[in-house]
Amino acid sequence: MKKKSRFLQTPIEPFAVEAGLTADEILSRMERISFQGRSLATAHRIWRRMLEDDVTIFMGMAGALSAGGLRMIVAHLITHRYIDCLVSTGANLYHDLHETRGQHHYLGSPHADDALLAKDRIDRVYDTFASEEEFIGNDNWIADFAASLEPRPYTSREFLHRLGGHLWETTGRDGILTSAYRANVPIFCPAIADSSIGMGLSQARQKVPGTGYIDIIGDVVESANIVIRRPRTASVVLGGGTPKNFINQATVQAEFFSDDVGGHRYALQVVTDVPQYGGASGSTLEEAQSWGKLATDSARVSVQADATIALPLLASALAHIDPDVLAQRRRPVFTLTSRVMTIDDQPLSCDRFEAQNEPAV
Amino acid sequence: MKKKSRFLQTPIEPFAVEAGLTADEILSRMERISFQGRSLATAHRIWRRMLEDDVTIFMGMAGALSAGGLRMIVAHLITHRYIDCLVSTGANLYHDLHETRGQHHYLGSPHADDALLAKDRIDRVYDTFASEEEFIGNDNWIADFAASLEPRPYTSREFLHRLGGHLWETTGRDGILTSAYRANVPIFCPAIADSSIGMGLSQARQKVPGTGYIDIIGDVVESANIVIRRPRTASVVLGGGTPKNFINQATVQAEFFSDDVGGHRYALQVVTDVPQYGGASGSTLEEAQSWGKLATDSARVSVQADATIALPLLASALAHIDPDVLAQRRRPVFTLTSRVMTIDDQPLSCDRFEAQNEPAV
Amino acid sequence: MKKKSRFLQTPIEPFAVEAGLTADEILSRMERISFQGRSLATAHRIWRRMLEDDVTIFMGMAGALSAGGLRMIVAHLITHRYIDCLVSTGANLYHDLHETRGQHHYLGSPHADDALLAKDRIDRVYDTFASEEEFIGNDNWIADFAASLEPRPYTSREFLHRLGGHLWETTGRDGILTSAYRANVPIFCPAIADSSIGMGLSQARQKVPGTGYIDIIGDVVESANIVIRRPRTASVVLGGGTPKNFINQATVQAEFFSDDVGGHRYALQVVTDVPQYGGASGSTLEEAQSWGKLATDSARVSVQADATIALPLLASALAHIDPDVLAQRRRPVFTLTSRVMTIDDQPLSCDRFEAQNEPAV
Amino acid sequence: MKKKSRFLQTPIEPFAVEAGLTADEILSRMERISFQGRSLATAHRIWRRMLEDDVTIFMGMAGALSAGGLRMIVAHLITHRYIDCLVSTGANLYHDLHETRGQHHYLGSPHADDALLAKDRIDRVYDTFASEEEFIGNDNWIADFAASLEPRPYTSREFLHRLGGHLWETTGRDGILTSAYRANVPIFCPAIADSSIGMGLSQARQKVPGTGYIDIIGDVVESANIVIRRPRTASVVLGGGTPKNFINQATVQAEFFSDDVGGHRYALQVVTDVPQYGGASGSTLEEAQSWGKLATDSARVSVQADATIALPLLASALAHIDPDVLAQRRRPVFTLTSRVMTIDDQPLSCDRFEAQNEPAV
Repeated sequence: MKKKSRFLQTPIEPFAVEAGLTADEILSRMERISFQGRSLATAHRIWRRMLEDDVTIFMGMAGALSAGGLRMIVAHLITHRYIDCLVSTGANLYHDLHETRGQHHYLGSPHADDALLAKDRIDRVYDTFASEEEFIGNDNWIADFAASLEPRPYTSREFLHRLGGHLWETTGRDGILTSAYRANVPIFCPAIADSSIGMGLSQARQKVPGTGYIDIIGDVVESANIVIRRPRTASVVLGGGTPKNFINQATVQAEFFSDDVGGHRYALQVVTDVPQYGGASGSTLEEAQSWGKLATDSARVSVQADATIALPLLASALAHIDPDVLAQRRRPVFTLTSRVMTIDDQPLSCDRFEAQNEPAV
Repeated sequence: MKKKSRFLQTPIEPFAVEAGLTADEILSRMERISFQGRSLATAHRIWRRMLEDDVTIFMGMAGALSAGGLRMIVAHLITHRYIDCLVSTGANLYHDLHETRGQHHYLGSPHADDALLAKDRIDRVYDTFASEEEFIGNDNWIADFAASLEPRPYTSREFLHRLGGHLWETTGRDGILTSAYRANVPIFCPAIADSSIGMGLSQARQKVPGTGYIDIIGDVVESANIVIRRPRTASVVLGGGTPKNFINQATVQAEFFSDDVGGHRYALQVVTDVPQYGGASGSTLEEAQSWGKLATDSARVSVQADATIALPLLASALAHIDPDVLAQRRRPVFTLTSRVMTIDDQPLSCDRFEAQNEPAV
Repeated sequence: MKKKSRFLQTPIEPFAVEAGLTADEILSRMERISFQGRSLATAHRIWRRMLEDDVTIFMGMAGALSAGGLRMIVAHLITHRYIDCLVSTGANLYHDLHETRGQHHYLGSPHADDALLAKDRIDRVYDTFASEEEFIGNDNWIADFAASLEPRPYTSREFLHRLGGHLWETTGRDGILTSAYRANVPIFCPAIADSSIGMGLSQARQKVPGTGYIDIIGDVVESANIVIRRPRTASVVLGGGTPKNFINQATVQAEFFSDDVGGHRYALQVVTDVPQYGGASGSTLEEAQSWGKLATDSARVSVQADATIALPLLASALAHIDPDVLAQRRRPVFTLTSRVMTIDDQPLSCDRFEAQNEPAV
Repeated sequence: MKKKSRFLQTPIEPFAVEAGLTADEILSRMERISFQGRSLATAHRIWRRMLEDDVTIFMGMAGALSAGGLRMIVAHLITHRYIDCLVSTGANLYHDLHETRGQHHYLGSPHADDALLAKDRIDRVYDTFASEEEFIGNDNWIADFAASLEPRPYTSREFLHRLGGHLWETTGRDGILTSAYRANVPIFCPAIADSSIGMGLSQARQKVPGTGYIDIIGDVVESANIVIRRPRTASVVLGGGTPKNFINQATVQAEFFSDDVGGHRYALQVVTDVPQYGGASGSTLEEAQSWGKLATDSARVSVQADATIALPLLASALAHIDPDVLAQRRRPVFTLTSRVMTIDDQPLSCDRFEAQNEPAV
């Protein structure tokens, strides 16, 4: 009998329908199908491997995920430490704050008449509506808080931790900001100026001169310092944007100062952009290797899918992980209450890069 | 207290992660989120409504779904009559036949070296591999079968029913073609010439002159006649292509001959194309109303997603439907063994449009 | 001085704006930029090389290009023999016929109210409108013509040549069908049943029993025979769909019967689909090599762009080609008026594959 | 004769191929075709109308446009004041600086082996390569410059103007940064931390403590103040990202402080993202109306295309505009050399919003 080609090793196994399958069973059956279904299953497997390995997991989120109903998934991932550090757009934190303050986004339609919405002061995000008036209330609330802080520069990481704390004290409600506050998970927001949080901060300055300063270059230093201390990293990216690059940049920057850094060991991204136009959001994880953002032997997968489909499935499947796995992770311990954060009880500067390395594991 | 805008009725309800959720529970929690997650949940709801109403359900499939591991889902949908009539590209039926004949597609990589694959005679479909030699074997098998038939024109519907029967007798294995044969569900393949089944048919003609004639215009007549007889219809489209238009065309064509026909009452599509380029695959269901393909009051939803993610989830959720619902459907009963098929015991011509209508329900 | 990496050879040359640039000058300046701009410039270069080499050029067109205002470009490409054989969807030929018959498509809006359009019997294609009544007139005109033909099977190639002839005699107007008729360029339409031409053919059968038979399997044989006779081929694909695969299939099929066939020597495609979902429309030209559809050393490029942007630019630039280049092409000479076509004065069967080869050049 | 539907007013006019057409003639012929071709032609028309009206034109650029060969187009648009204010990602300014410093990006391939590239320290952006070593040189150059500045916070606008000046003095070469410096066109970079310019700034801090502070909240205030002073605005967006939102945010923020502000009067965007996933990059200009970002009666168009195709064509066509039209624009006059910029000879704060308005024109 003729020998099979070396390319023909593992047969596709058609997905078998069955009632009662749970998310992890569904993803497990998708491991042997093709295309983005398989990619999603691979993403699940890689995330599990991240959790079983000794890596610091960065997650980036862009797109209207909070307005779109995924904020409690992210909060869940933070609380249970499926991730160690969040990098987000301002909008996702703002829409999280909106709901944590007891307000809502609403089911709407992409076919709505926007002139009518404008008249009613309803803001539309594709198929989702919200009240502009409530948004103005949020801006003001953020401005008041920022104006109440000692007038000095704050990294977005410090500011957001404080904002989360204030939000928790005020509302006692779960959400991304409050969960991160309670779990001592840092949040970076490199483009915070480009969001309603930025608008709130600009209004703080109107209320109390000298307030509303965000030191985003401090965030650059601090995020790289995390990688210098913890050179084994992993990246989970939802939607591209500034968070995707910022997470990669931390690694590239860290590598200048430490030979132990060698790019993420694991990387998964769920994106809707494609690589053909050269933009960073759609760029492949293969390309990322050329920059040293990823180790060339990293486990990696891109999933071409809307996060509102992929993340509910992924998170539901990850919920099946043995709690011991999560408990046994050698995850970094942060304190975040002041300008100088600590990681594993060591202070971490936002003003200069750390030269000393921990031995790479 | 101020009155809310009429646009703010139903709040988004953030997806709550929980271990042990089944597919239908996951989709149910996605009903109140946004974007394509919500669209997928709506697709699930609309499909359920189709099954509870008295409609004839057409399903179209394009894209490499069979090679990609979804063929047993389609077979399951046929066997349990979640659908009443399938319109497919030739490739999907060919790759189904390939596996039903005991062969496989294989896990591959989109980054493979195609020159090496060509040398090894391995054909690649994105991340999936198959043996060219086995494909040639299939072509020959199809050619032999087609050459054995009485030399006259066959609608694709009749030919595929016979092919499914021969495949069942030969292999006794489940698949799309064999399930459709056993469940007496008609399969139309309007672009059958553009596929390896078409190549097989062309080779039949080489073997036995006068064989290998497919009467696709007969398929046009016959599919419209189904709608004339059963004017309440629904459409499930996976991936656009010729099947999407053919299902709609049947309705438009039928309307010339019967006032009872008024466009599909329900329509859902899972597509990756977008409308902005004017192509039929990405065209919206709203646009379809202008053509009379859909009733203007139809329930409808487009899901922008890869079918390899959407269909496993949808089908797993639909598996939770009470078997009584499926049993109580007033589904059409077909016989398909000859040139003149029957529907509900009445013959249905492929040579002229039926003028007589059943009363619309 | 340090040696540059071997990867750094040809610098990007930023596009320099200047008034008065013609299309070919613009594309020439785009050769040294990046992303899809460069791809489009490469497509232009490859098409020029096709014309200078001795290859038979197949062009495939899918998407609503005729309705969308590109039909006279295609007619121009046919008349001046930038291409030698057209493979089209039925819709593109139908919408061409619509305008050649003196009717129009109209500027519309993607934001139109489709229920209102339906009431007015206006059909919408994204941002373009047309009259349903005029479409019904076309269907009837096609039906009358088809019913007037001797009742026997016609390949789509023969039928479309005759249809083009009838249209030319009736209208004397240029268009795709009439230009192809006059230039003796064959048109194949493998999915003709899936279009309003197919609907017209089905209505012919209603008028005169026994008419309206299209032998698409004959098209499979005939198109492969063209490649067997002319093994050096090139492929220009606009929009994917059945034409893309049919052109490739002709090559694969021909290879069974002739060792001279080795896949297209040149290939360019302008598509909006992407490969990640496994569909044929978006599949890469690299993948096509694994199937033998393309020679592994072929010149090839994919342009990710809407044809309504890319084709006007490409065709305007190609218009600058020296007429001698076009005149000196060793292009195939067809006669198309009967069931058996000829190529270079030799008859070409649609009933069996040709075994004899011309020597490969 | 029967009356035409009111929906059928202006016929599609098929594009007529002709040698020697210039960019504006090509776009003019695309006005009466469909889909994205028409959208691009409309974008051209709207940009012309912006230039003829009395509006302040903001342009946003995201994606790898500078690396990809479009930087001299942007420089041209700045120099000739087709735009009045640029909002950019950091990467586009960084890759501009890279070339202005006499270095290059290089033609590469999307199929390159990234592990090999990594070994050679070549960074890949889709089909474009660059030397990592040269990038490190740039970072250091930026760091040295930033470290040489008086240690205080700088808005990105002030910093980038100074950087442009330094670059001009050092190199005397044209580019985006140097042209903007020379033409006194402000550049905002709200996400400057998320780029290699941000990395350079972080390294400045390493060299001279207290340097490398960017006051992005000051940018929020300042950009809104421009709109307060000049409430009639227009928006040209290439590629979405933070620039798209930042330009819109300026308008929304300004509206809090001035009733004269009512959203952009003109808006065009060239994007590759689509709206269906809810992300800001792909969001429609219709949706933008609901937020008050655009006037509900604004002229607007979205072009779904890669900027590397659309921008060369648009800019070449705009080069045909009568120089008098550009000369007669009542364009804002800026001075940008210090923390407090001026517009039309009036100082403009970055520390508090201006309440006084100019009368709306």
